Amino acid sequence: MKLTSFVTQDGRESCGIVLGDAAKPEGIVDLGDRYSSLRQLLADEQGVGYARSRQADKPTIAWGSVRLLPVITNPDKILCVGVNYASHVKETGREMPPKPMIFTRFAETQVGANEDMVCPKVSEQFDYEGELAVVIGKRSRYVSRERAMERVAGFSCYNDGSLRDWQRHSQQFAPGKNFPKTGAFGPWLVTTDAMPELSKQSLKTRLNGREVQSATLDDLIFDVPELVSYCSSFITLEPGDVIITGTTGGVGAFHKPPLWMKAGDQVEVEISGIGILRNGIVKEAADFAI
Amino acid sequence: MKLTSFVTQDGRESCGIVLGDAAKPEGIVDLGDRYSSLRQLLADEQGVGYARSRQADKPTIAWGSVRLLPVITNPDKILCVGVNYASHVKETGREMPPKPMIFTRFAETQVGANEDMVCPKVSEQFDYEGELAVVIGKRSRYVSRERAMERVAGFSCYNDGSLRDWQRHSQQFAPGKNFPKTGAFGPWLVTTDAMPELSKQSLKTRLNGREVQSATLDDLIFDVPELVSYCSSFITLEPGDVIITGTTGGVGAFHKPPLWMKAGDQVEVEISGIGILRNGIVKEAADFAI
Repeated sequence: MKLTSFVTQDGRESCGIVLGDAAKPEGIVDLGDRYSSLRQLLADEQGVGYARSRQADKPTIAWGSVRLLPVITNPDKILCVGVNYASHVKETGREMPPKPMIFTRFAETQVGANEDMVCPKVSEQFDYEGELAVVIGKRSRYVSRERAMERVAGFSCYNDGSLRDWQRHSQQFAPGKNFPKTGAFGPWLVTTDAMPELSKQSLKTRLNGREVQSATLDDLIFDVPELVSYCSSFITLEPGDVIITGTTGGVGAFHKPPLWMKAGDQVEVEISGIGILRNGIVKEAADFAI
Repeated sequence: MKLTSFVTQDGRESCGIVLGDAAKPEGIVDLGDRYSSLRQLLADEQGVGYARSRQADKPTIAWGSVRLLPVITNPDKILCVGVNYASHVKETGREMPPKPMIFTRFAETQVGANEDMVCPKVSEQFDYEGELAVVIGKRSRYVSRERAMERVAGFSCYNDGSLRDWQRHSQQFAPGKNFPKTGAFGPWLVTTDAMPELSKQSLKTRLNGREVQSATLDDLIFDVPELVSYCSSFITLEPGDVIITGTTGGVGAFHKPPLWMKAGDQVEVEISGIGILRNGIVKEAADFAI
């Protein structure tokens, strides 16, 4: 089952089931009559079961008529994993990490599929990071690696857009990872039961059609159960929380010369078994301030 | 004016004005009839003005009858500054930083004044960090250093409790800074107009009555206007957001042998012009899990 968040043509924010194949979605079964957000649906123990019971419904909304939102629009927490692919560790010149590297994003930094990602006026070093996103389904603290997958609702694609100069202002990544509208999340969540074997899936990032990142998920240093277990040790994971699992080799910063995203570019993150997350890039207005 | 957040004896969460001297509060004027939280009060342009208009009221709640909450119970963002005192930079052996070092906390990690801070079962290295907290009063993006103080609602004390081993699992601090109930925030916010000259104020931390940190705020490498301006460059600051401005020399990790907080300890952070934030320490139950 594919679940997503969207705004209807008349401006109503909702969530629902995406019917049809990932390559050709047919429409949406709107669940907005019962749940105002996917986070709320996941927080209700009956939520996913209720959605399943509506899977055979006819779609009530045409796929092309909605504006997609970040799959979880308002997560309590977005935990990001750094340097978690062996190939990316190699290109950064780092050692293999003994523990996951965790930093955070705020919800405001997200955009949905097909929405423009925004390169802020104060940086030119806007880089892509194609990643697998894990969405938490059940409240969890100190969950074991063995039981961790029971707490996962599903998976999505994420582009952890990063302002490399701001990321390197200090040892801590937060500034470079929290500019508004720099993290793309979509187009939908694929529930765990519908996801083919994770480790065999491929992750690709394309910039203007050119493949710039390519990996299989078995190259993850800390896999999904390990990450869920680790994160649940230091914080209580809540339904709708997001763990973005790190990027693979090929980020723009390590191209020679560096390959930054700029206005007019199109970027795609594709994960087999999930689908394609597409976003355009725009530049923030030079006089923008609040 | 001193504003705070609390739970009444009958379990109602509210916010209000603390009357009387910081050393001997007389009572609280409850503003709960108009605002359900201090964040909501600050988000209302009329909020602080309304509170001022109620300052001459008789207190409706006895000071000792309430349980204090984190000054802002549900901030959208808590931005933390690392190594921001010249004396602390010296003890960590680091170089003077060219830009502020920013990491984050989640709201769940907070406790109020007089509430116990919790040392998690998975670490023994629970360290104090006495800090000045800045509470944002107005939505801000790309605010200049010169205009930054107009966006600040006030100041409070913070104990940025840190699990040093988890903080050092990788280069990123998030795990060691986000265990539930490790960050103490209180006892109240002193509005900017009532705050004596910041740079002349002293910051002291005491563990079981022993002074372990002592600084004046003029030792801050990046001062409050600089931090507000910097943070507003990479994220939109919202009313109720919190910037905790970094700790000074004397943290337990650099004592020889290290001085960790343990069950039964009492820790105090005192900032002149604000007051004293007191907390006990308890150990998490060995079988705790969710």
